[in-house]
Amino acid sequence: MQAIIEGCRAGSIPAEVVVVVSDVASAPALERARSFGVEGVFVDPNRFAGRREFDRAVLRALEERRVDLVLLAGFMRILGPEFVRAFRGRMMNIHPSLLPAFPGLEAQRQALEYGVKYSGCTVHFVDEGVDTGPIILQAVVPVSEDDTAETLAERILAEEHRIYPEAVRLYAEGRLAVEGRRVRVLAGSGGRRSD
Amino acid sequence: MQAIIEGCRAGSIPAEVVVVVSDVASAPALERARSFGVEGVFVDPNRFAGRREFDRAVLRALEERRVDLVLLAGFMRILGPEFVRAFRGRMMNIHPSLLPAFPGLEAQRQALEYGVKYSGCTVHFVDEGVDTGPIILQAVVPVSEDDTAETLAERILAEEHRIYPEAVRLYAEGRLAVEGRRVRVLAGSGGRRSD
Repeated sequence: MQAIIEGCRAGSIPAEVVVVVSDVASAPALERARSFGVEGVFVDPNRFAGRREFDRAVLRALEERRVDLVLLAGFMRILGPEFVRAFRGRMMNIHPSLLPAFPGLEAQRQALEYGVKYSGCTVHFVDEGVDTGPIILQAVVPVSEDDTAETLAERILAEEHRIYPEAVRLYAEGRLAVEGRRVRVLAGSGGRRSD
Repeated sequence: MQAIIEGCRAGSIPAEVVVVVSDVASAPALERARSFGVEGVFVDPNRFAGRREFDRAVLRALEERRVDLVLLAGFMRILGPEFVRAFRGRMMNIHPSLLPAFPGLEAQRQALEYGVKYSGCTVHFVDEGVDTGPIILQAVVPVSEDDTAETLAERILAEEHRIYPEAVRLYAEGRLAVEGRRVRVLAGSGGRRSD
């Protein structure tokens, strides 16, 4: 979150972070956002009868602020189909594995236990499934033999901080073309081109 | 196959290829093997009542020649549990994806259709599942936007030719330690160390 706010501030991402929403009142992200002058909104899940009502409250908060792009980051709830529909092609998530390998929770631990030699992270558009949407960017990270879930997670996180802002930049520059499951990166006017 | 025979001949792999077995009489691999002075054996599936009998005939052919390590390469039959047990930890396969992503047939096409940004290949020990055994080595290959299944397969194949001989070398040097699902590469006496 901070990397993206900073990218927007510095002008490397032509966008503005207008609101950070959390379902945890004490989330450090809310405080951090406010320290950057970004509005932090806590939506209390206990105030709603069910998931759908909670989703609608979040949706309303975003629509009121005319949010164009939603970025999930450490958001541990699954958003329902209504929410997904409202932001189809306009909602991203980052996942700490090379999807489709190791979706779901504790991806780094899953990778270690499976015994892969490479893992990484994936920025993808969100669809109705869990970590199944069209892939925007991926980064590869080698797994070393003495890795723990923690050391692997740390190495992956460094790449997450690189590719998530990059994906947002490409979106803000209008350079992501979704064709079925495949996301194409269009050439930029500045001649920069992402891999 | 040829890369491994050549590696053995050149001395970079301390092993000898004693026999190549195919279930296809006209398989070019048999002719190629013979051109290297390696015995090529055709085991005719039609001569056997079922898969188990076929497996046993192959097993017998290998045991008669005191084969230590079995390498699957383009072998499109699934070997039964009896065969797998006989060569547990002594039978490798190479698969054209970063397993556990895209097991089974047409892995390169699966990867393209899913829309991943990186694929690759995996050398693994064979267990009872399809492409599920402990991973020995992997190599990563970027997927480009104009890739077809054919161009991607070609790029992956170049890496297959690199890591399969490397995995055989490590095995022949006694440097592979299987611990559950994880395969550790032990340091070599020559100071070379694989990634």
